[in-house]
Amino acid sequence: MRASELGVIDGHLTIGGVDAVKLVERYRTPLYVTDENQVRERFRAFKDAFSGVKSEIYYAMKANGNLAILKILESEGAGVDVFSAGELYMALLAGFPREKILFNGNSKTDEELELAVEAGVTVSVDSLDELEALAQIAKRLGKRSSIAFRVNPDISPKTHPKISTGIRTSKFGIPHTEVMDAYRRAWELDGLDIKGIHCHIGSQILELGVFGEVMERMMNLVEEIKDELGIRLEFLDIGGGLGVAYREDDPAPTPHDLADVVLPVFKGRCKEAGVSPTLILEPGRYIVADSTVLLTRVNTVKRAYKNFVATDAGFNLLARPVLYGSYHRIVVANKMDLPPEETYTIVGPICESGDILGEDRRLPKIEKGDILAILDTGAYGFSMSSQYNQRPRCAEVLVSDGRVELIREEESVGDLMMRQRIPDRLL
Amino acid sequence: MRASELGVIDGHLTIGGVDAVKLVERYRTPLYVTDENQVRERFRAFKDAFSGVKSEIYYAMKANGNLAILKILESEGAGVDVFSAGELYMALLAGFPREKILFNGNSKTDEELELAVEAGVTVSVDSLDELEALAQIAKRLGKRSSIAFRVNPDISPKTHPKISTGIRTSKFGIPHTEVMDAYRRAWELDGLDIKGIHCHIGSQILELGVFGEVMERMMNLVEEIKDELGIRLEFLDIGGGLGVAYREDDPAPTPHDLADVVLPVFKGRCKEAGVSPTLILEPGRYIVADSTVLLTRVNTVKRAYKNFVATDAGFNLLARPVLYGSYHRIVVANKMDLPPEETYTIVGPICESGDILGEDRRLPKIEKGDILAILDTGAYGFSMSSQYNQRPRCAEVLVSDGRVELIREEESVGDLMMRQRIPDRLL
Repeated sequence: MRASELGVIDGHLTIGGVDAVKLVERYRTPLYVTDENQVRERFRAFKDAFSGVKSEIYYAMKANGNLAILKILESEGAGVDVFSAGELYMALLAGFPREKILFNGNSKTDEELELAVEAGVTVSVDSLDELEALAQIAKRLGKRSSIAFRVNPDISPKTHPKISTGIRTSKFGIPHTEVMDAYRRAWELDGLDIKGIHCHIGSQILELGVFGEVMERMMNLVEEIKDELGIRLEFLDIGGGLGVAYREDDPAPTPHDLADVVLPVFKGRCKEAGVSPTLILEPGRYIVADSTVLLTRVNTVKRAYKNFVATDAGFNLLARPVLYGSYHRIVVANKMDLPPEETYTIVGPICESGDILGEDRRLPKIEKGDILAILDTGAYGFSMSSQYNQRPRCAEVLVSDGRVELIREEESVGDLMMRQRIPDRLL
Repeated sequence: MRASELGVIDGHLTIGGVDAVKLVERYRTPLYVTDENQVRERFRAFKDAFSGVKSEIYYAMKANGNLAILKILESEGAGVDVFSAGELYMALLAGFPREKILFNGNSKTDEELELAVEAGVTVSVDSLDELEALAQIAKRLGKRSSIAFRVNPDISPKTHPKISTGIRTSKFGIPHTEVMDAYRRAWELDGLDIKGIHCHIGSQILELGVFGEVMERMMNLVEEIKDELGIRLEFLDIGGGLGVAYREDDPAPTPHDLADVVLPVFKGRCKEAGVSPTLILEPGRYIVADSTVLLTRVNTVKRAYKNFVATDAGFNLLARPVLYGSYHRIVVANKMDLPPEETYTIVGPICESGDILGEDRRLPKIEKGDILAILDTGAYGFSMSSQYNQRPRCAEVLVSDGRVELIREEESVGDLMMRQRIPDRLL
């Protein structure tokens, strides 16, 4: 959430009407805290922005796959983009309708394809290899499979290279220049129902102009498929990618801004071509990023070459800074009414120098025991967490209008041992 | 292991005398496979190299904390460097002697310090804040605590900045120019036994000259502590950092090479100063890296802008390439007798473009179903794994002289759900 929207009562940060300091007294640190209303509002904003056309919002659950979050979004009418058998399993468990589940991914096992066919969800096919495998599996199971192709549109968004997924050199999708061959081949094969077309150019995109280009390129293909194969696709899925403002001065584009870029092209081209596919969007980060804070306790303050503040959360729980050099705003949850006084570098407890949560931040004077809140950690936070350095992962709580619910228990050291087996001879 | 040491029988890769293809038929993919003899040999090489002086080898378990691996090293007489309460727990469970456990870390909680005092292990104190906390805790518990200080020697090794831990700007340790004050303060405090001094300059270091400089700087402090405070330290721990040859043409320094750099300085300076501390080394990577391969199955081969080979293991299981741009050799385990024929980029199944295991590798012609072996993945492999994209983590097996033992079961989707709680009202 925007810092200006953070609640403060008696100098303490509040989230969803709940005092962050009280939360950590009850649930310890580190702790992920998600504001349910914020998730719902963000989803509704997306739905609303595209309500002028036949559209569906598929939540990209890779951003945050907690089952409670999934249930919340399912209750809002979301569909879901899944990326593995595990994600499909969670989506089905959370009750998403099968016809609103898209099975995405560049490297699906035969087992995963079987599961998709059995479950009756649509598969976004990433290669010709996969197409042949899927057709064989559908035949063997005596079922039909609904498909789309994932197109690599060769379009570069301005974002981190590790999450630019629609550039020419990316591992994802079929080159847009070759995708017609894939549709032709799918047309020849038995057991496949060609339903749509799909692309995804990247994540955390703040300059939206590129989405107009994406829409033009995808509509060219929609038209070509209609003209050449006589197929009117049921859906066009342009993926996700709408960024969020991690920094105070980042642009903060909205779903309405995105709609303003893509809808005129979409409507115009559909009318020209005489087609009316459902437009699918796949936001993940935008729905959940700013719903969540990671609360962490200060273990030590050290004056060395820099002023280091060492906390109990590191890249085991929040990998984005070490992985992408990402910026997250940090506030002192128990000193919200104090002015910035010193410059600190906030580091985690992990055994690597790269374990830095925030560099050179101006903050109130920090002491051992203070609680820091790392903001906007709802997307790619817990979902990328590890048990590195044998650290059990932390709890997650859901807050809304003053109510607090535990949605993931803290792990214990027993969880670290659970699947291990020591051969008798070594005991 | 060096490629030249990999076994091949009937065109299949063998590890520890076991056919890799048969292993994946039994245990599925992905699969981590560790050769026990290799771990033992590497440890013995270290021990042997420093046997000319009073020395101890403390395994840095952050590299690979599997309990079976810990038991193997404990049986070899290793001590252990731990970095969290979880690591301490595992070390005690594996039976390491308390007097050979060093509790390291830049951000220890009071709980962790209590655990260390209760367990009677030595604490490497990282800051003055921590020193005061530890003294209070020891007093409260009515116990004494053995300590060393972690010194930041301000020495830069040639390695990846994320794992350069002894440079001035690193979060670790007390600046070498200030550490005497810390020893003086420890001397004043009750309940603390000053046992040693500790540093660690980084990981994956291939140019060893820098260790001579480290030894000189640390011996200056050992001498100063003796001269000023009259304390003859019982140990000098110069950390780990010996690198391994991930590339065929990397230098492959040995523990003997390291000993050749540090021992002359150590012996000479000890003699001059009239001290005889135990020399402690903390290798992690060197002990386990080349003992292990990660076996992964090819799901698809795609000719796009590059020839992409997509496997069932990605940065969920091996984070080093995406995190540090690390190189791991890759071989086709079921086609070891075929010559390289094409250039492939090997990618995992994760939803990000950065999920690349190897770029532009010359390999035999690859087909769906082939088994790739990613070499030298015993260190910072499974230990940094995550369940990102809702992927249960894979199994680990131990092989030795043809024997195969499961040391970690494959996770299931149930493991992903285990700690989650969905509030009733959302069901």
